[in-house]
Amino acid sequence: MSDAASVQAVRATVGDSEFDRDTAPTRRAPGVYDIDLSAGWTILGAVNGGYLLAVLGRALADALPHGDPFTISAHYLTASKPGPAVVRTDVVRTGRTLSTGQASLFQYDDEGHEVERIRVLASYGDLDTLPDDVRTAAEPPAFPPMEHCFGPEDGPAPAAGTSAIADRLMLKLDPSTLGWALGAPSGKGEMRSWFGLADGRDADPFSLLLAVDALPPTAFEIGLSGWVPTVELTVHVRCRPAPGPLRVSITTRNLAGGFLEEDAEVWDSADRLVAQSRQLARVRLG
Amino acid sequence: MSDAASVQAVRATVGDSEFDRDTAPTRRAPGVYDIDLSAGWTILGAVNGGYLLAVLGRALADALPHGDPFTISAHYLTASKPGPAVVRTDVVRTGRTLSTGQASLFQYDDEGHEVERIRVLASYGDLDTLPDDVRTAAEPPAFPPMEHCFGPEDGPAPAAGTSAIADRLMLKLDPSTLGWALGAPSGKGEMRSWFGLADGRDADPFSLLLAVDALPPTAFEIGLSGWVPTVELTVHVRCRPAPGPLRVSITTRNLAGGFLEEDAEVWDSADRLVAQSRQLARVRLG
Repeated sequence: MSDAASVQAVRATVGDSEFDRDTAPTRRAPGVYDIDLSAGWTILGAVNGGYLLAVLGRALADALPHGDPFTISAHYLTASKPGPAVVRTDVVRTGRTLSTGQASLFQYDDEGHEVERIRVLASYGDLDTLPDDVRTAAEPPAFPPMEHCFGPEDGPAPAAGTSAIADRLMLKLDPSTLGWALGAPSGKGEMRSWFGLADGRDADPFSLLLAVDALPPTAFEIGLSGWVPTVELTVHVRCRPAPGPLRVSITTRNLAGGFLEEDAEVWDSADRLVAQSRQLARVRLG
Repeated sequence: MSDAASVQAVRATVGDSEFDRDTAPTRRAPGVYDIDLSAGWTILGAVNGGYLLAVLGRALADALPHGDPFTISAHYLTASKPGPAVVRTDVVRTGRTLSTGQASLFQYDDEGHEVERIRVLASYGDLDTLPDDVRTAAEPPAFPPMEHCFGPEDGPAPAAGTSAIADRLMLKLDPSTLGWALGAPSGKGEMRSWFGLADGRDADPFSLLLAVDALPPTAFEIGLSGWVPTVELTVHVRCRPAPGPLRVSITTRNLAGGFLEEDAEVWDSADRLVAQSRQLARVRLG
C-alpha cells in the first residue's frame, strides 16, 4: 500500500481535514485575515456559499471572545472566485454569554482594487455552556436508510464530474427528491440528503455552515434549472453535532417574483436539530 | 362632534399615520439620521424590536437607491429606550436590481457616549418591478373569522394596559393560541393573530417589519413567561401587501439550550404570502 493510499484510508478528524485546511484564515494583523479560496469547493466554477460562510465564520471565531456561531447572517454581494481573498472583521459588542461581530470578504479586480464579496453579521457564544433543557416539537424528517439513497457516484446524476465540491462531500439524496435528475421533477420544493465530508471528518459548527448550502437547489424539484444565487443566508447553530452522518432537509414553500426561500434543517446522529437556516435566493424564470 | 373625534374617525393613510411619524428618520448629514424613539411602541417599557427595525429600514430606504427591503437581518445588541437615537447607514453595494446597505442605531449612556443598540444588514429592491410569476406550495393558515378572535380590549387578556404598543395595534388573536392568557397554555409553540394598525393605516413593507415581531411570544403557549429578548431577526418581504388586515402566524419548533426560533409568516387580504421572518430569541428557563 502506498503512503497516499494509507493516508486516505484514515478518517480525517476535526482540525486535520481538507475542510479545515481550506477554511483556515491566516491572521495578517488584528482583525485582518488572508485566505486562499480553494477551487475544491466550487460548483460549476462558482465558490460554494456555505464554504465561504465557514471561512468567514472561522475568522470571526478568532476575532471574538466566543468560539461558536449561534446565529450568522450573510448578504452575498458579488460572486467569489477561487484564489486569494482577505477577510476583515470588526468586533461589534462583547458580552458575557454572547458576542457580536461583523466580517467582510474581499477579492481583487483586474486593477488590484478590493471588491467586497460577502458581508456578515454574527452573534457567537459557547455551545457547551448551554443547559440541556429541550422542549421541542420538531421531529426528524422521514429519511430512507442511507443505502437506499443516491449520490453523484451512484449513476446518472447530472452533477457528477461537473462540480469539484462533489468529490469532497458525502451526499446521499433521498430518491423521492431526485426526480429532477431523471427529468421528472416532483414539483415540490423539497430536497433531502444524508451529509458528511468525504474524508470522514465529523461535523462541527463550521461544517454545519457548509451543510445548509451544499445540496442541489430545491428549485430543481420545482422544475427550474440553472444557477440560484443566494442573496441572503442566515444560519442558527442550535447544538454541537454528535459524531456521525447528518441529515439535511430543505424546503421551499414560496417561489414568487423571481425569488424563493430555502429553509434548511440539519439533524445529527443523536436525532437533535443542530442547525436551522433560511436563505433568500434568486431564480431565473423562463 | 369635536375636532379630535372627527380626526379619529378618519382612517389614517400610509405616510400620514402615527406609525409613519414615529418611524421617520430626520437626515442630519449624508447617511446620518436622528430619530426620537417613541414611548408609544413599548412593551413593558422596552421598545419593540419590530418598530426599531422599521426605523432602521426607513433610514436605509433613504440612503439606498432602492426603496423596498427585500431581506433585512438585524442583530440586537442592547435594549433600546424611548428617547433620542441616531442611525448611521453605510452603502455596501448598489446594483441594478438590488442594493445592499448596513445601518446601526445608537443611543447615549449617562456620560453621553454612543451605545450601539442594533446593527442591520439589508438588501433592497423595487417590489413593483417583480414579475407576477408565483409557484407556491404555501397556503394561508386556517384562521377563525376576526369576530371570533380576541384582542387586549376584549377582556381579561393580561397584556391590557401594560403595554403602550397595544393601543396602537389592531390585534385579534386566534383563541386556539390564547390558552396562556387563561392560565392553560397549549404547549404548542404557535401564535396567530389578525394584525393592523389601530388608526386604520394599511400595510406597507415597513409595517410588515413591525408585524412579524408584534404578537405575544410563542413561548407563552409553551408555558414560559417573561421577556424573550431577540438576538437576531431576519425578515424577507416577498410582495407589496394589499389593503386590509393582515394575518400573522408564528411557529416555534425548537426550544433548546435556552434559545428558541420564531418563524413568522404574514398573509395579506389577497391571500398572498407577503413576508416571512425568523428570529433567534433567548428564554429564561425556570
